[in-house]
Amino acid sequence: MPYDKSKVKELKHRAAKIRLLSIETTAKAGSGHPTSCCSCAEALAVMFFHSMKYLPQDPGNAANDRLVLSKGHAAPALYAAWSEAGYLKEEELYTLREMGSRIEGHPMPSLPFVDVATGSLGQGLACGLGIAVQQRSVLKNNARTYVLMGDGEMAEGSVWEAMSLASAMKVDNLIAVVDVNRLGQSRETILGHDMATYEKRVAAFGWEAITVEKGNDVESVLAAFDKAETVTGKPVCILLKTFKGAGMTEISDKDNWHGKPLKDDAVRAKAIEDVSVDIMKNPPAPQIKEPAAVKGTLPTKPESYASVEKAPYEKGSKAATREAVGPALVNVGGLDKRVWVIDGDTQNSTYSQKFAEKYPERFIECFIAEQNMAGVGAGLAARGLVPVAVTFGAFLVRAADQIRMAALSGLPVKFIGTHAGISIGEDGASQMALEDLAFFATLPNGAVFYPSDGVSAYKCILNLIKHDGPGYVRLSRPSSPIIYNPDETFEIGGLKVVHAPERPTITAIASGVILHELLKAAKSLVNKVDVQVVDLYSIKPFPTEELKKLVEKTNGKVAVFEEHSPNGGIGSEVSRNLAGTIKKFKHSAVTSVPCSGTPEELLAAYGLSADKIAETLENF
Amino acid sequence: MPYDKSKVKELKHRAAKIRLLSIETTAKAGSGHPTSCCSCAEALAVMFFHSMKYLPQDPGNAANDRLVLSKGHAAPALYAAWSEAGYLKEEELYTLREMGSRIEGHPMPSLPFVDVATGSLGQGLACGLGIAVQQRSVLKNNARTYVLMGDGEMAEGSVWEAMSLASAMKVDNLIAVVDVNRLGQSRETILGHDMATYEKRVAAFGWEAITVEKGNDVESVLAAFDKAETVTGKPVCILLKTFKGAGMTEISDKDNWHGKPLKDDAVRAKAIEDVSVDIMKNPPAPQIKEPAAVKGTLPTKPESYASVEKAPYEKGSKAATREAVGPALVNVGGLDKRVWVIDGDTQNSTYSQKFAEKYPERFIECFIAEQNMAGVGAGLAARGLVPVAVTFGAFLVRAADQIRMAALSGLPVKFIGTHAGISIGEDGASQMALEDLAFFATLPNGAVFYPSDGVSAYKCILNLIKHDGPGYVRLSRPSSPIIYNPDETFEIGGLKVVHAPERPTITAIASGVILHELLKAAKSLVNKVDVQVVDLYSIKPFPTEELKKLVEKTNGKVAVFEEHSPNGGIGSEVSRNLAGTIKKFKHSAVTSVPCSGTPEELLAAYGLSADKIAETLENF
Repeated sequence: MPYDKSKVKELKHRAAKIRLLSIETTAKAGSGHPTSCCSCAEALAVMFFHSMKYLPQDPGNAANDRLVLSKGHAAPALYAAWSEAGYLKEEELYTLREMGSRIEGHPMPSLPFVDVATGSLGQGLACGLGIAVQQRSVLKNNARTYVLMGDGEMAEGSVWEAMSLASAMKVDNLIAVVDVNRLGQSRETILGHDMATYEKRVAAFGWEAITVEKGNDVESVLAAFDKAETVTGKPVCILLKTFKGAGMTEISDKDNWHGKPLKDDAVRAKAIEDVSVDIMKNPPAPQIKEPAAVKGTLPTKPESYASVEKAPYEKGSKAATREAVGPALVNVGGLDKRVWVIDGDTQNSTYSQKFAEKYPERFIECFIAEQNMAGVGAGLAARGLVPVAVTFGAFLVRAADQIRMAALSGLPVKFIGTHAGISIGEDGASQMALEDLAFFATLPNGAVFYPSDGVSAYKCILNLIKHDGPGYVRLSRPSSPIIYNPDETFEIGGLKVVHAPERPTITAIASGVILHELLKAAKSLVNKVDVQVVDLYSIKPFPTEELKKLVEKTNGKVAVFEEHSPNGGIGSEVSRNLAGTIKKFKHSAVTSVPCSGTPEELLAAYGLSADKIAETLENF
Repeated sequence: MPYDKSKVKELKHRAAKIRLLSIETTAKAGSGHPTSCCSCAEALAVMFFHSMKYLPQDPGNAANDRLVLSKGHAAPALYAAWSEAGYLKEEELYTLREMGSRIEGHPMPSLPFVDVATGSLGQGLACGLGIAVQQRSVLKNNARTYVLMGDGEMAEGSVWEAMSLASAMKVDNLIAVVDVNRLGQSRETILGHDMATYEKRVAAFGWEAITVEKGNDVESVLAAFDKAETVTGKPVCILLKTFKGAGMTEISDKDNWHGKPLKDDAVRAKAIEDVSVDIMKNPPAPQIKEPAAVKGTLPTKPESYASVEKAPYEKGSKAATREAVGPALVNVGGLDKRVWVIDGDTQNSTYSQKFAEKYPERFIECFIAEQNMAGVGAGLAARGLVPVAVTFGAFLVRAADQIRMAALSGLPVKFIGTHAGISIGEDGASQMALEDLAFFATLPNGAVFYPSDGVSAYKCILNLIKHDGPGYVRLSRPSSPIIYNPDETFEIGGLKVVHAPERPTITAIASGVILHELLKAAKSLVNKVDVQVVDLYSIKPFPTEELKKLVEKTNGKVAVFEEHSPNGGIGSEVSRNLAGTIKKFKHSAVTSVPCSGTPEELLAAYGLSADKIAETLENF
């Protein structure tokens, strides 16, 4: 189907400008990936100046079609496209990679057209899936999400997790675009230019595959994108056979050009000459289709959470902290319509099932694919929702890289991990979260809560929702006594003293299940050793000043008990935040690979049972 | 093709015994997954008593065919199979999940037939791939590796990473067996019993797919496994359509039975009655095929590493610590033939390419699929090799769950992460490792090294190889001065004092690039503030006693500077190990999301440049 000559000419111009600016800005910066930019120039030109419906002067507008640049190292090409569209000024592009510039080496959400930071490959499709789900569920204006990927990253399993779920959910407003330029960083990719195999794989995963043999030919690319828009009932994957460095005759499809700016003046001049053949002297103003008006209601943050603050547990009863997930998510979800819940086939163990039953339209079963779950969460969060991802704490580190990237993006993706530590018992080591606190504590602006009973668990989940950033709540499997009143307040960055002798000689600190063991121990030691017991439910933000005062009261004598690796958990946080205040320090943690056993036996084995804790404190 | 009647009868008996023992032992334990065991009973019976060639009394024998139980929760069935084969006594099976028993809830390598701990789903295929590669490259006796997977875990992207690489490498001694029982933990899986789609996906990923419509029928299963052995040039995936709880008429294919032992006596009695129909009164002794003799040479640990100890750098020259990867791996690899190197398409940045060029037969390019890389490493390590997995430190956390499981298995998988911290500069936050120390420090028996120059980097990589366990070396992108002599020794668990005034008032600690900034700062402060500078190249094991003495010398006054999150890195380890000794503590780290910029600008922004460090120390 022949296209209008002037349209084709204009799009070739746009692609040429994208190439030119990618080459020049990376050369000026002295680093960057111009060849990776060149291979997807036509794809970007067609998306920005033909297919996508958006307001170029308002990239953050909710109604817009959206683009996720999964191959984040092609950032200069993305910036060039937005400059051609009129949003960025060309001069600003030349601040690429400079300190303080929002034109960063890989896209960061300091720019309103960047929903999620990219640069760690294979993650964009999951994020795009989350965004597309928000578009169809909330906006209801037929907006689309495009995800531009490289071929190297198709080796990442996370891509296939997203592929699988997107087709199962029939997310047909999601369009993946794969820039198959054959060359990875250090060598040819696994499949090279084997387009037939890519097509087979994508189709087998339930997507409509559209292969373009001439992925650097505007008319071929146009046809593919137009065809994509006619597909319904399944997501679409456009597979473009391209050349890395396309447009630059000396460099195109050659080895050893990944991540190399064109520093040599002569080489660059030739490349510019090559790509400039399509530059128009008087290009037309871009004519970009406007998005359809948003039909649905964008949920907003409630004025107050007071109506759901009261926990559904009475002091003196019993509950596992993981049980609180049910009422907490249902109650806060009923009030705050931004809340969505996503689980990884553990909803009957994590109690997220309660939310799934009550608000199925805001629940996504992600199946056993935690990386995708985290990525979908990032996408939902990027579009104003508050996603809560729930599974076993041990399995959340499966998504560590996605969680890291979402935090770098400043996205408020919330995580709840159940089955903390050795107290899960007989299932054994593989199911025990023993390093989750260490990981989650590293997230910039991340909160980490670790409640000990049902009431505080309920409150901590609310805190998680309220916290302006990412965060984690660590919950336990066994039942514990409810030790707080249902209207007790749990400040973010606070602590609770649950046993306060008049003249304590030791400050003992614990959380979760171990807090109860410690409390038992402290009570058994009354008249022998006076131990003030701290329930450290807020690990980050850390209650430094409050704890300091308590520790000074015991002359710097501190004991920490935790069912976590000795590294990076409560002991680490206490000793780091109170460095200088601590004079004597005892620390019991899980110091070796645990095994199957009853919770009681396991706790005793690691000095974390009430008896063993009492022993430790007595001999301290 | 009809099978011998007595063979079929025997295999039905074996499957029935596997069911019976799974039901009974989990009932006694009070927990476990009997329905997940029942669905794969025929598969296990055929593997153990027909297909696999192994010595039942010597499960660890190098020549054996091997089985990885990727669906680790079916452990009771695995134990039952080994009991039927004569290796375990039935009585021992009844100690399932008891403290101190090697019959754990999920398989652990305390049992010689368990190569890698499983229980975190989707990881077994990568491990199996590593094992199969060792078999064909080293043993050369046509041994096979079988990986028994569940269908729920087919949602994990890591499975498809393994699928992709295994077919690309034509690893045709690898046989995957998928127990498609339709039901996950909380609900039906994404594909349920859609065998055609599984087949399409597996075939698209280059495997020979063999679908068995009657996956709980011995003859059908036999035929599939026999057919699998005729396939060459590609790995084989047997897809069994089964029923969860097969054999138990009241329970088979019913919802809500995942992870539930048959506690009710009546229910269990009925189930036992059902499965017992195939129990033979006088079963024959198992006739298990012997493996072919090993043809290749199993490499062994060298007597001494002295011949490669000397680093190829002269004091006063310059090198990036990442450069040391090249000579270190080449030299140690030349001496220690157990060493294999695996990289994730970064070999030209990490310098593992040097090893790839020298010893291509012991190098595996894993492409952009870090989870699979780590899993393959676990497989290689399980079979006596010493795999070193190399990529950017930031991307290693993509494989955090696999690394965790390998450490739980006690496997000596070595990791090298380059491009630490903000000093990488312009590429920006996505490429910066800022949480890697926190994560790797949590590994039980894991070593963590963080060298500051080429000499110590070379030595630390050697230390990594020598350490009897898993470990991590953190390396940097920029060039740094060589400050040590090439024959300097770097003990595991040691430290170096690189600037030692007579009467220091501050002990300042750093590693990597920051150590050089600190050294510059300390030298600039001579006559103003006397700072003793510690190069903390061994973060785990931590040099507690040695550092304590140094810190006591400065009356407990300590400053730590690191390009890492403030949580879980050097500051955490110092404050935790020296709790009580520290009296005054200053800590500079990467306290927010960083951005693009020159390394110098970024270091200054976080108080980690020589000038800023000097300021901090002066005002301390």
